[in-house]
Amino acid sequence: MKFEITVLGSGSALPTLTRRPSSHFVNCNERYILIDCGEGTQLQLRKYKLKFQRIDVICITHLHGDHFFGLVGLLSTMHLLGREKKLTIICPEGLESIIRMQLEIGGGAYLSFEIEFNELNYPASKLVFEDNVLEIHCFPLKHRVPTHGFLIQEKERLYSLDKPAFDHYGLSIAQIPAIRRGEDIEREDGTIIRNKELVLPKEKPKSYAYCSDTIFRENLTEHVSGVDLMYHEATFLDKDKDKAKKTYHTTAAQAGQLAKKARVKKLLIGHFSTRYLDVQGHIDEAGQHFENVEAAEEGKVIRI
Amino acid sequence: MKFEITVLGSGSALPTLTRRPSSHFVNCNERYILIDCGEGTQLQLRKYKLKFQRIDVICITHLHGDHFFGLVGLLSTMHLLGREKKLTIICPEGLESIIRMQLEIGGGAYLSFEIEFNELNYPASKLVFEDNVLEIHCFPLKHRVPTHGFLIQEKERLYSLDKPAFDHYGLSIAQIPAIRRGEDIEREDGTIIRNKELVLPKEKPKSYAYCSDTIFRENLTEHVSGVDLMYHEATFLDKDKDKAKKTYHTTAAQAGQLAKKARVKKLLIGHFSTRYLDVQGHIDEAGQHFENVEAAEEGKVIRI
Repeated sequence: MKFEITVLGSGSALPTLTRRPSSHFVNCNERYILIDCGEGTQLQLRKYKLKFQRIDVICITHLHGDHFFGLVGLLSTMHLLGREKKLTIICPEGLESIIRMQLEIGGGAYLSFEIEFNELNYPASKLVFEDNVLEIHCFPLKHRVPTHGFLIQEKERLYSLDKPAFDHYGLSIAQIPAIRRGEDIEREDGTIIRNKELVLPKEKPKSYAYCSDTIFRENLTEHVSGVDLMYHEATFLDKDKDKAKKTYHTTAAQAGQLAKKARVKKLLIGHFSTRYLDVQGHIDEAGQHFENVEAAEEGKVIRI
Repeated sequence: MKFEITVLGSGSALPTLTRRPSSHFVNCNERYILIDCGEGTQLQLRKYKLKFQRIDVICITHLHGDHFFGLVGLLSTMHLLGREKKLTIICPEGLESIIRMQLEIGGGAYLSFEIEFNELNYPASKLVFEDNVLEIHCFPLKHRVPTHGFLIQEKERLYSLDKPAFDHYGLSIAQIPAIRRGEDIEREDGTIIRNKELVLPKEKPKSYAYCSDTIFRENLTEHVSGVDLMYHEATFLDKDKDKAKKTYHTTAAQAGQLAKKARVKKLLIGHFSTRYLDVQGHIDEAGQHFENVEAAEEGKVIRI
């Protein structure tokens, strides 16, 4: 099982040569999800050799430019390269018309692939995408414009068969589905074989939460409690917490406090303001509250 | 006098890590003009240390994404960095509403600076911008959507005084404006001093034409005749001329033929299709028709 996040952009509103606008590429058991798509995201995907035609779902948190200005260009490139696979876009209300208007003015509404826009308008958390591998839930953040975070949750998988045990008991192929569902097996002589004797230990389904942009809100923990990885914005340092509050952003210390309170396994911070030359201060500050913290950085891959 | 073009993007519809979408930065005697603004142009400006807050005028040739998807991000960054100087945008009809819609949805129509949109809707060439240094004319190209080329023309400048000659004749400061305008001077004793004895030789005003995207049209020469530098798209090689015609583009050979016919001083070709691994073929092909040819390349500076 693979659950892997690649950071494409760790910066905030101003794109620079070192820090690009927000975007994370998620590979969850070969379902590919892009979260946020600032200007230049398509080139970041190329740079890190991530095949963007494979993307199944794009989630856009909110309509500030550093989170969506790269979307139209990415869709346009997907079209020019002949994409046929349907794409789902989960985004705030209003984005579909902006995208379609730009594509249409450039010569027609026709795209080589279907896009299903699922526009977000929920005051509470909600399941917004589901297939046989994962679920995506949105949950409300509090920013200057309507904003959602996303929780990507692996589904419970079937057990893997313990092949030597299966052979040892001389069971039939027809019994495999039941074994993989976790059921005990009754043999013809009436004896029961406990399921755990027939399967390998199962990994717990993993989860990843993306929280950007938002003012510090303690009740966010209800949506991200216990996740394996929480990405949380940490635009500012605590010495600038008034600025953070005023602009509806979070400080690194606050992100650390949230991670601790929500008992997440690991914290990834990002969306750094250009005012800081480096982000060691952010790591140290979040680290005072929560030990397992990393800073987002272009090209960094985090395996859950 | 400085008249300098920096190539920010030499590619066509598909942005890649080596060839970016169309954009040229023009410094004409410290008037700064950006022509076309594909995705990522703001980072190209940063990369080549071109101060984008100085830009006076942005010209957009047409509404295919590789020529305008970077505009909203650039404007947004100008605003975030507190620009106050008015900006003029010369562009096809429809772009203003696309830009304003995206800025407004991200939190309000307010920008820290004024934008004057001058939307193009002319079947013939026309003066579209003028100040005391230069003129910008648009002229029609023929592409799949309404498209204009641009001609940037320096204005005739005043003569520079030949200071030793001025002192030699013992003339007064009050006579300088007339001398610089090119007038002969009558002395009190009735003798005439010819203007050419009092001034330095004047450079001829220079000119630069930008032609992209367009099908090959011989009558384009009427708009670009004799310019010092003509940029012309050369998306394809002549072996792909059917493809060029079908998509309303030009081949390198055709660009060379036009340069010769229009008696331009120098030809710059660009907008290269990603199908070609390098562009030596384009240079050779255009060079068979016109000697002074260069290929556009990211960061290349051409002094006129």
